[in-house]
Amino acid sequence: MRDLVEIGMGRTARRAYDLDDIEIVPSRRTRSSKVVSTAWKIDAYQFDLPLVTHPTDAIVSPGTAVAVGELGGLGVLNAEGLWARHSNVEEAMFRILRTAEDTDDPGALVRLLQELHSAPIRVDLLKDAIRTVREAGVTVAARVSPQHAAELTPDLLAAGVEILVVQGTMISAEHVARDDHPLNLKDFIADLDVPVIAGGVADYRTAMHLMRTGAAGVIVGHGYTPGVTSTDRVLGIGVPMATAIIDAAAARRDYLDETGGRYVHVLADGGMNASGDIAKAIACGADAVMLGAPLAAAAEAPGQGLYWTAAAAHPSLPRSRVAAGPEYEVDLKTLLFGPSSDAEGVVNLFGALRRAMAKTGYSDLKEFQKVNLTIRR
Amino acid sequence: MRDLVEIGMGRTARRAYDLDDIEIVPSRRTRSSKVVSTAWKIDAYQFDLPLVTHPTDAIVSPGTAVAVGELGGLGVLNAEGLWARHSNVEEAMFRILRTAEDTDDPGALVRLLQELHSAPIRVDLLKDAIRTVREAGVTVAARVSPQHAAELTPDLLAAGVEILVVQGTMISAEHVARDDHPLNLKDFIADLDVPVIAGGVADYRTAMHLMRTGAAGVIVGHGYTPGVTSTDRVLGIGVPMATAIIDAAAARRDYLDETGGRYVHVLADGGMNASGDIAKAIACGADAVMLGAPLAAAAEAPGQGLYWTAAAAHPSLPRSRVAAGPEYEVDLKTLLFGPSSDAEGVVNLFGALRRAMAKTGYSDLKEFQKVNLTIRR
Amino acid sequence: MRDLVEIGMGRTARRAYDLDDIEIVPSRRTRSSKVVSTAWKIDAYQFDLPLVTHPTDAIVSPGTAVAVGELGGLGVLNAEGLWARHSNVEEAMFRILRTAEDTDDPGALVRLLQELHSAPIRVDLLKDAIRTVREAGVTVAARVSPQHAAELTPDLLAAGVEILVVQGTMISAEHVARDDHPLNLKDFIADLDVPVIAGGVADYRTAMHLMRTGAAGVIVGHGYTPGVTSTDRVLGIGVPMATAIIDAAAARRDYLDETGGRYVHVLADGGMNASGDIAKAIACGADAVMLGAPLAAAAEAPGQGLYWTAAAAHPSLPRSRVAAGPEYEVDLKTLLFGPSSDAEGVVNLFGALRRAMAKTGYSDLKEFQKVNLTIRR
Amino acid sequence: MRDLVEIGMGRTARRAYDLDDIEIVPSRRTRSSKVVSTAWKIDAYQFDLPLVTHPTDAIVSPGTAVAVGELGGLGVLNAEGLWARHSNVEEAMFRILRTAEDTDDPGALVRLLQELHSAPIRVDLLKDAIRTVREAGVTVAARVSPQHAAELTPDLLAAGVEILVVQGTMISAEHVARDDHPLNLKDFIADLDVPVIAGGVADYRTAMHLMRTGAAGVIVGHGYTPGVTSTDRVLGIGVPMATAIIDAAAARRDYLDETGGRYVHVLADGGMNASGDIAKAIACGADAVMLGAPLAAAAEAPGQGLYWTAAAAHPSLPRSRVAAGPEYEVDLKTLLFGPSSDAEGVVNLFGALRRAMAKTGYSDLKEFQKVNLTIRR
Repeated sequence: MRDLVEIGMGRTARRAYDLDDIEIVPSRRTRSSKVVSTAWKIDAYQFDLPLVTHPTDAIVSPGTAVAVGELGGLGVLNAEGLWARHSNVEEAMFRILRTAEDTDDPGALVRLLQELHSAPIRVDLLKDAIRTVREAGVTVAARVSPQHAAELTPDLLAAGVEILVVQGTMISAEHVARDDHPLNLKDFIADLDVPVIAGGVADYRTAMHLMRTGAAGVIVGHGYTPGVTSTDRVLGIGVPMATAIIDAAAARRDYLDETGGRYVHVLADGGMNASGDIAKAIACGADAVMLGAPLAAAAEAPGQGLYWTAAAAHPSLPRSRVAAGPEYEVDLKTLLFGPSSDAEGVVNLFGALRRAMAKTGYSDLKEFQKVNLTIRR
Repeated sequence: MRDLVEIGMGRTARRAYDLDDIEIVPSRRTRSSKVVSTAWKIDAYQFDLPLVTHPTDAIVSPGTAVAVGELGGLGVLNAEGLWARHSNVEEAMFRILRTAEDTDDPGALVRLLQELHSAPIRVDLLKDAIRTVREAGVTVAARVSPQHAAELTPDLLAAGVEILVVQGTMISAEHVARDDHPLNLKDFIADLDVPVIAGGVADYRTAMHLMRTGAAGVIVGHGYTPGVTSTDRVLGIGVPMATAIIDAAAARRDYLDETGGRYVHVLADGGMNASGDIAKAIACGADAVMLGAPLAAAAEAPGQGLYWTAAAAHPSLPRSRVAAGPEYEVDLKTLLFGPSSDAEGVVNLFGALRRAMAKTGYSDLKEFQKVNLTIRR
Repeated sequence: MRDLVEIGMGRTARRAYDLDDIEIVPSRRTRSSKVVSTAWKIDAYQFDLPLVTHPTDAIVSPGTAVAVGELGGLGVLNAEGLWARHSNVEEAMFRILRTAEDTDDPGALVRLLQELHSAPIRVDLLKDAIRTVREAGVTVAARVSPQHAAELTPDLLAAGVEILVVQGTMISAEHVARDDHPLNLKDFIADLDVPVIAGGVADYRTAMHLMRTGAAGVIVGHGYTPGVTSTDRVLGIGVPMATAIIDAAAARRDYLDETGGRYVHVLADGGMNASGDIAKAIACGADAVMLGAPLAAAAEAPGQGLYWTAAAAHPSLPRSRVAAGPEYEVDLKTLLFGPSSDAEGVVNLFGALRRAMAKTGYSDLKEFQKVNLTIRR
Repeated sequence: MRDLVEIGMGRTARRAYDLDDIEIVPSRRTRSSKVVSTAWKIDAYQFDLPLVTHPTDAIVSPGTAVAVGELGGLGVLNAEGLWARHSNVEEAMFRILRTAEDTDDPGALVRLLQELHSAPIRVDLLKDAIRTVREAGVTVAARVSPQHAAELTPDLLAAGVEILVVQGTMISAEHVARDDHPLNLKDFIADLDVPVIAGGVADYRTAMHLMRTGAAGVIVGHGYTPGVTSTDRVLGIGVPMATAIIDAAAARRDYLDETGGRYVHVLADGGMNASGDIAKAIACGADAVMLGAPLAAAAEAPGQGLYWTAAAAHPSLPRSRVAAGPEYEVDLKTLLFGPSSDAEGVVNLFGALRRAMAKTGYSDLKEFQKVNLTIRR
């Protein structure tokens, strides 16, 4: 039953599946979408929506972090992005937009992002940004890379961060290096008073190891976005999201058993382009989704229709394009709750999730993780 | 043999197939198409063609319902569509066509449909429409949604409806709701004197439960039309039609055994774009096909070349585009019986079915449900 | 090992493969292409090339039948095509070409072919055409449909046909009809003094039955040509050529055993667009290939760059477009033997076959039928 | 587990995989890319990069061979290409470029290459080219075809070639011919003092036989480049690179055991379009990659943006187009080591390999050959 294949003499590979490869099968009595709950909580924090933002400047400003929080989700600010490096982010964004309009050379936009990210991180700017979110009264979250986690975290906590996201393309519980001092996540987390969400991971073992560091949540994937990210093409590393989420959920179950009750949340990050993909990610076992590109359609998104991930600004090996996002634009509230006047699955993202749950007969997220799935082809 | 795959640790999914994935294999002596019968009957109603129209205003007016009936099929009027809401449907259709010509924004058409459907259902209009069909002497059928079935059915029956179609995207025998009074199909059907066709369903279990409500026919699928419907994208729910039809046919067989002889008809709704797909749907076990988009090529179709399904008008989560239909136009009779002067499989739809049956050596629909199939890829 | 899949509850389908799905694997010592033979014989007729023409007017005139014969293959004239119906075929071809230039409506070309084929078959014209081939001294072959075989064959034989091809889209050893007198192939062949090649078939059983009628050769497939034929779309019937050829070769082997030595040749008709496909068809077990569209590139082809199959002219259900063929044009000899100055696999068709055999270490066609194959995806 | 499928009655084929079909899975602790080594050695020659150039004139001039060598790889000059036939290669290249600009006929470029290659090989020119490389102090390698190996090798060795590459599309340890004297690789290699790299091969058995001839390295594949090469289309022979590399690595392992310690290197040639594919080829077991098209982006490449392989110049059956290469142009050093300012995986090819190894936790190439793989679809 385990889907192992001998792809050459003496070498076995596992067949793995994307969200695109699967579909949800209704096979129970249906239910009114009014009796469906999409609530989830992590640590002491309760959310109406299983929505966490992918920490890219293209969609998360302090302002949109507040807006997402007020609508029931969790906005995550990138603590190493433009708001941490430039006092006038509006001007930086304007340069990006103007370049997008003026050139057909996709490299020009990546070069500009590389240049903008070569400015140093300024703790004062970072604290200002965090405080804006905190003062609005929503849950405050920020993302740091494993490389800068130790250095930036004290200031982030001082500014009021309540949930810390430690996120690189692919991270592990223990990093090997020669001369610098790599982050030991277990010690790092043990020293903190706030819950940590860490990732991305792609397999059961790394997920399990991250859970054992004390993380409150584990991120599966690295924000794969078709036409935007290129980690698979550049590194040969792809994350088949359906299989990866299911595997991380298996780690969650085994870790729960191993610890006699500690439940580590699984967040799916990538491969979700339409509302149906959100439903599929939950159906595979995700507790919440980390959304990027689909939020670029919000009128409030700082990228104003452009989308990129943090990997676009890597100084020597960028793995994200700066791409035109969706062609439509609606306010964030409509994006999440509708009403929609198109049939593309890109507006009313969480109304669609409720309806998918209702049509398959489930009333909460945890139950919906058991819905039947089919593979197409 | 059951095609189950472990798509992640501890999680199994079934591999499912579309009509596109399969092909019919001739493996018996051939037969003249003159000795082939395509007749079927449901309850007391006999039809020369296994053709039921998908109840969308784009193809079914009272006039085309009559035309389909006179040619041997069953036209189903949407009792909650434009003919039920507007006294001047021609004007409404004219607005739709003009908008289609004037704009490139697909949302504009969906918004217009949403607006046109926000007008209340008028029983007088509905009755007029039904009577037009009845007076022509063909079998009269109308579609209601589960939500409005209880409310509208008495008037429909009074107006002369002979076959009632209760159809939502996905329905179940029992619907759960908190404060409103959901339809109990079993009680509802028991109280009626006319046969009920109900659906859509996607799996064996729901099909079996619907059969047990007393339905005379069960609809498989929800009218999937490439480039038009988007239920898979919006909800993550798709119906692999080959597998779904076969499963519903298995339910039909088991229910026949369970009841000692009650035969519930299986109608396939969706995934049929050319005449070969009609043959495949029957080959998978359908007793009849519910056709939508292929009929939009009829000169008589009210949509005059545009096609959409009822889901296009959903007020907050539309799941159908309003799309340009086929580029050719022929009268309905030629569409169904030929002659064709193209090689695209879109004209002479039922002549093609006869020929497919003949070339594989079958003389009636019930036998043809056993023809050999292959999977491509 | 048999590739059977339960595609739905209680319903099994076999997975089948196209020539595109497979590739040849070199795994022996290589060989000089100079020591390779591509000769084959059927009955008393010996050919340097395993090439039989698909009997379409687009590529076979009496003149090209002679040219093919002189170059080592077998040209098959369609005894029910334009040369049998029009004294001035040049004018008919001119009308086709002019229509192709003047219109974008593909239906216009099909309608014209339907019109041209509505002219009655004239035995005098047919005999003239056959005699032209006979007088050139090459082997004379003509194709009749099962429907007209009994009526036309005496005149064809009188005119000098040496190999008779009885070919419909899908034929069987025994055809069932009500009021007309269908062809009994076994009796028909028993009464003839010339070898008969019959087809097309798609499976082991029908192939075996045809072999038992006394046919000298069995045609597998119905000339599938991408962008041209549409039997799959129109009838739901497709022929996965790799699997179908292998199955017919299995029938050949079993029939050889059953008869203690009668070898019936297998001819592959369809799915061959480039020289590599010819090699694959032989590799699957074909004794010869029936080529259509690839020969439309010949400067001598009557269609002058257009291609269609006989199914294009069906009066009510055409299953072939009249399509622009290859964009290049070379003389027939170069097409078959090179030299080529492109890299597309469409010129030097049989030089390529020799080289494929040489690189995999085989020196004759019969041996090459055993070469190793892989499936891609 | 062996992925064998009955593709037709009594005929089995093995399912084989391309690099595109697989992906690398991180499942260990991560590692800093600074502690990663990409060094390899063959015979006495040590290289910083597992990079060997595909011997096509489009990318390898004496000058680029030197540049590649200085950057840590091995440049291989085609001893039967333009530098061996024309004293003024610049003029020949200019004609190619001008023709590419002036015509839309792809055949024109192939014809020009055929013409340029019809000039005789001049040993004086060849020696001059080799000496240029030798004098720069880098390792000197040249490619000969099996047909001309015996004739050209003495002069090549005299001019200073240190590694000889004997390469045809598909070669075997023993070639069968009638009247000419084919190369016996075993005798040929036994007589030489320099290491020989030979190929291409596609399967375990031929790889094993080549290893037994005494070759120091075996090339897997024939430089498959999408849009450029057409061996699959012309001959029906394709090499699924992931499976072929794994099989050759199995032969390497078995031969190592058979000989008690002789390690023959496996070089992957083809199917690598982006840096991720290089990582995958190593992951499948390659010791080094033979790169062609990705190097056409180098400003130093003689083809100046055009790419073709040696098969383009075959006099009667060319199997490579002359195609526009990448649209960008960077210097060779940046191409190999970055920094990159795009996200396409085409610049910083070996920085990307280091990072892929680091993110999956491996520190040298030999270890990285064991990384986990998944199949997508």
